[in-house]
Amino acid sequence: MTPQGDANGTVFEVRQARVRAALELAGIDAVLLSVGADLPYLTGYEAMPLERLTILVLPRDGEAVLVVPELEAPRVPDHGACTIVPWSETVDPIGIVAGLAAGATTIAIGDLTWTRFTLALQAALPDASFSPANAVTGPLRAVKDADEIAALRAAAHAVDAVAVEMRARPFGGRTEADVSREFVDRMLEHGHQRTNFAIVGSGPNGASPHHDASDRVIRDGDVIVCDFGATMHGYCSDTTRMFVVGDPSDEIADTYAALADAQELAVRAATVGTPCEEVDAVARRALEPHGLAGAFIHRIGHGIGLEAHEDPYIVAGNSQPLVAGHAFSIEPGVYFPGRFGMRLEDIVVATDAGPDRLNRSPRDLAVVG
Amino acid sequence: MTPQGDANGTVFEVRQARVRAALELAGIDAVLLSVGADLPYLTGYEAMPLERLTILVLPRDGEAVLVVPELEAPRVPDHGACTIVPWSETVDPIGIVAGLAAGATTIAIGDLTWTRFTLALQAALPDASFSPANAVTGPLRAVKDADEIAALRAAAHAVDAVAVEMRARPFGGRTEADVSREFVDRMLEHGHQRTNFAIVGSGPNGASPHHDASDRVIRDGDVIVCDFGATMHGYCSDTTRMFVVGDPSDEIADTYAALADAQELAVRAATVGTPCEEVDAVARRALEPHGLAGAFIHRIGHGIGLEAHEDPYIVAGNSQPLVAGHAFSIEPGVYFPGRFGMRLEDIVVATDAGPDRLNRSPRDLAVVG
Repeated sequence: MTPQGDANGTVFEVRQARVRAALELAGIDAVLLSVGADLPYLTGYEAMPLERLTILVLPRDGEAVLVVPELEAPRVPDHGACTIVPWSETVDPIGIVAGLAAGATTIAIGDLTWTRFTLALQAALPDASFSPANAVTGPLRAVKDADEIAALRAAAHAVDAVAVEMRARPFGGRTEADVSREFVDRMLEHGHQRTNFAIVGSGPNGASPHHDASDRVIRDGDVIVCDFGATMHGYCSDTTRMFVVGDPSDEIADTYAALADAQELAVRAATVGTPCEEVDAVARRALEPHGLAGAFIHRIGHGIGLEAHEDPYIVAGNSQPLVAGHAFSIEPGVYFPGRFGMRLEDIVVATDAGPDRLNRSPRDLAVVG
Repeated sequence: MTPQGDANGTVFEVRQARVRAALELAGIDAVLLSVGADLPYLTGYEAMPLERLTILVLPRDGEAVLVVPELEAPRVPDHGACTIVPWSETVDPIGIVAGLAAGATTIAIGDLTWTRFTLALQAALPDASFSPANAVTGPLRAVKDADEIAALRAAAHAVDAVAVEMRARPFGGRTEADVSREFVDRMLEHGHQRTNFAIVGSGPNGASPHHDASDRVIRDGDVIVCDFGATMHGYCSDTTRMFVVGDPSDEIADTYAALADAQELAVRAATVGTPCEEVDAVARRALEPHGLAGAFIHRIGHGIGLEAHEDPYIVAGNSQPLVAGHAFSIEPGVYFPGRFGMRLEDIVVATDAGPDRLNRSPRDLAVVG
């Protein structure tokens, strides 16, 4: 992510000001942010997920201070719009954070913060009540600006290129792990800096939606779920395409056609103002006449941005209406334990001109060797 | 990790029994384990680090129950020695966990558990006090059994092979990121399933101990810190070797010789019964006459096992004596901002026969092209 701003300051200054305004509205005195995407969203710096505490103390009415291990301080960029307080190996950083947050009685704390640090902070600040920071940051992060949508689009096109390349590659006779490794390599070659997952679920393994690629050797006739995503300049890609070794049976072809229809209808339904849960329901209704609704065992999608999964969640029970700038996956799937599974996934941005589907690789069932 | 047991049950049953005994001693009613290594240590199953809650409820006197998202339930191995309770997308898993833990007034919760879940559990169980689970699990996990040491040794030998190969590879003219990618590829080729980091810090970048490999092009005369590690069958590798492009200057050679001496003395000092902090102090004392103690800005080491960093920490202030089966890094480093840095790291196991250094690749400063 390139930090750019406007007359109101750098992008980080602008975002911090928005968080302060949200804290004011919510009656929260300070927010504490450690591992997770809120910290890079507000400073450009990502905390290492290690036992040495990194935490940003952002008071509603005071200076933003990043408490960071001394040996990691050289990693913090200069443009982060915060003061840096390094702590050395024999110092207790909880004491430093408690000192900076002293007087705060309502504290929002980053959702992914390690519990060991939260328990220590609760003990050090016994008069404060703690709430999840995502209630403040989630709605801000969920609405992407033009630069963020451009970053998501670039990441989507990179995995699209991988999907296209894989249509010409052999699958039969290879292990899932070998094919998964090829997805990983190609995502990096196409410009991602970090890979997040490369699910390859063949035959019966495809019925496990989050299957770990295994040593199973892919066979003739197998249907293969390939769900792969990575991070490019801070923003995530995530797409699922389906492959089959040799010509599909009628059952496979018919099931896939129903799934693809349901996905298409759900994408078209993802318009500004539509409740999230309605997008999910559209796909379920489309699968019902085919007897497939019961096989669709997960929500239809999740928001995406700096995190692979974030607000808004496109799920029954979430009546929040889509707003312009929401970016999310549309990924219905059907699963038949012991037999096979299928899923089809694109990233979509809600815009005033209608749903903008970022992924453009072919969506048909790819017949491979 | 292959689950093996003895007459007392599978390895997971034995470990769960030890945790229950530790809960009894500590007066804790139940332990809740989510993301992190405690859960695979006790069940063989690793929770996905996502927004859908996975948590093991292990009461001191009751059945172990794994609450897991329905779509991830097929991933849970049969041998995990726990009952599985899947939850579907529209159910609140916090309510399920609170029901299973009802009546517990003292609860230990996994250190890495996402704070959003801990805050929700605190609200759902208002009469319970929460403490970090590592106080219970850390001392158990820190002492490795023979199978665990064999796994750490295999992982160490795999990164040793990478270190040896890289001595014959060119560094000059390549970016740090390109060299880092080669370390990643070779770690996977040598049998790791997942890479954790591949720090390549060249020239002045080496003065940042946790430097992210960048687009800096490595030049003639550069000293390069290469700190790389990965996970093999659940257990972590972690080693640091130093490279220099072309013959080193006298200053570089002398500084490295002092660092290598300090590392050797610290490894020899890592005997059963020696306080952790004394191992750290040995290296500092060795660097002092060279005027290098002030440049050694971090602790000398950390435990290693299922996690890249875990108990015991080899740091000033930790007076805990080493016991047989402790596995940890010995990695002194010296850093000169704007100029260069150096670090040398091996994994060592404390044994009754003395320190057992797992890494065997050459420890001299490797001169490369």
